[in-house]
Amino acid sequence: MNSVKNLPEKTIERLSQYRRVLLDCLRQGKYNIYSHELASLLHINPVQVRRDIMLIGHNGTLRKGYDVKRLSDMIGTIIDSKEGQKVAVVGVGNLGRAIMTYFQGKRTKLVIAAAFDTDPAKVNRVIAGIRCYAASEMEEVIRKEGITIGVITVPPDKAAESAEKLVMAGIRGILNYTPVALNVEPHAYLEEYDMVTSLEKVAFFVKNRS
Amino acid sequence: MNSVKNLPEKTIERLSQYRRVLLDCLRQGKYNIYSHELASLLHINPVQVRRDIMLIGHNGTLRKGYDVKRLSDMIGTIIDSKEGQKVAVVGVGNLGRAIMTYFQGKRTKLVIAAAFDTDPAKVNRVIAGIRCYAASEMEEVIRKEGITIGVITVPPDKAAESAEKLVMAGIRGILNYTPVALNVEPHAYLEEYDMVTSLEKVAFFVKNRS
Repeated sequence: MNSVKNLPEKTIERLSQYRRVLLDCLRQGKYNIYSHELASLLHINPVQVRRDIMLIGHNGTLRKGYDVKRLSDMIGTIIDSKEGQKVAVVGVGNLGRAIMTYFQGKRTKLVIAAAFDTDPAKVNRVIAGIRCYAASEMEEVIRKEGITIGVITVPPDKAAESAEKLVMAGIRGILNYTPVALNVEPHAYLEEYDMVTSLEKVAFFVKNRS
Repeated sequence: MNSVKNLPEKTIERLSQYRRVLLDCLRQGKYNIYSHELASLLHINPVQVRRDIMLIGHNGTLRKGYDVKRLSDMIGTIIDSKEGQKVAVVGVGNLGRAIMTYFQGKRTKLVIAAAFDTDPAKVNRVIAGIRCYAASEMEEVIRKEGITIGVITVPPDKAAESAEKLVMAGIRGILNYTPVALNVEPHAYLEEYDMVTSLEKVAFFVKNRS
């Protein structure tokens, strides 16, 4: 299982998506799933699904497909840490709040443990079930709570500063939702998402299909 | 330029990201940029950047790199429609609001023209500068306004129903932010984003770098 450390980013993304679908199946009482069903639900190629799942050392059977519970647990051992990881949200605006609300209870091994903002009206309050601290307390809270991941949802002009503070506080992974391309120390893993890109992609394909 | 219709999805994503960086450059008074600068700002390989930009028929010079304004305009002709496209946001919760606020004035050729919700407290109000209509008015408003793209930010149990209504109203592209994998008519382009996947990806790499 040592080789899973070297799985490409895109494979990890798909494994996470497979698990989302598998957990949905379990909730619906569906205990077996074929690769083509999984593929169709995620709009990808069944060959891709089979290749990814073989890569993590799992196999289905021709007759019944994959065992939903076993495959989902297996993906869990790859993505999750045994002891779990804690996440901080920096910037409790609409997007920060959406993420805090959305994530509640979604995954047991990945928990939003703190939020940070500079607005006195938000500081020291519990918002969407998560305690909001002053931005000035960031380093202290992150170290005390053992938070390893930071999600940045501040206004663009505060993005670089927030990333710097997170890394100084010992954060090892950042998910950046601002449109500002960040530069962080190479020991911190950086993932960036800009919704304009998603929307422009849709716009492009709409334009060219007409 | 006919071949740009067949550009792969990932290339379109990167072109959109290049343009975001180029527009930032223009705002900062920077009129030339090298492929390696563009690459470094987006944490990708300079060879990839040069390949993508050659693919759309543009070339930089060794001495000055790319002309920022020309390249950004060129990407515009590929991604944007001449007459622009209108977008509707379905579900004015935290995420819907975040998108409406975030997008304001960002792109001239892609405009959020309407929002929909079922909450009487939101209907017939202007939220983040955008008029919010009752969900029951969806088909009428979309046809009247000529809206082509729908962004779905409703609760998961309303996702499928919203997608169906959008497609029936004539929408040709959907950006789905709910965790529910949708099934839409093949003539509508579907893009899905789940933030749990982004966060799990970060968690995986944090775990494996320690």
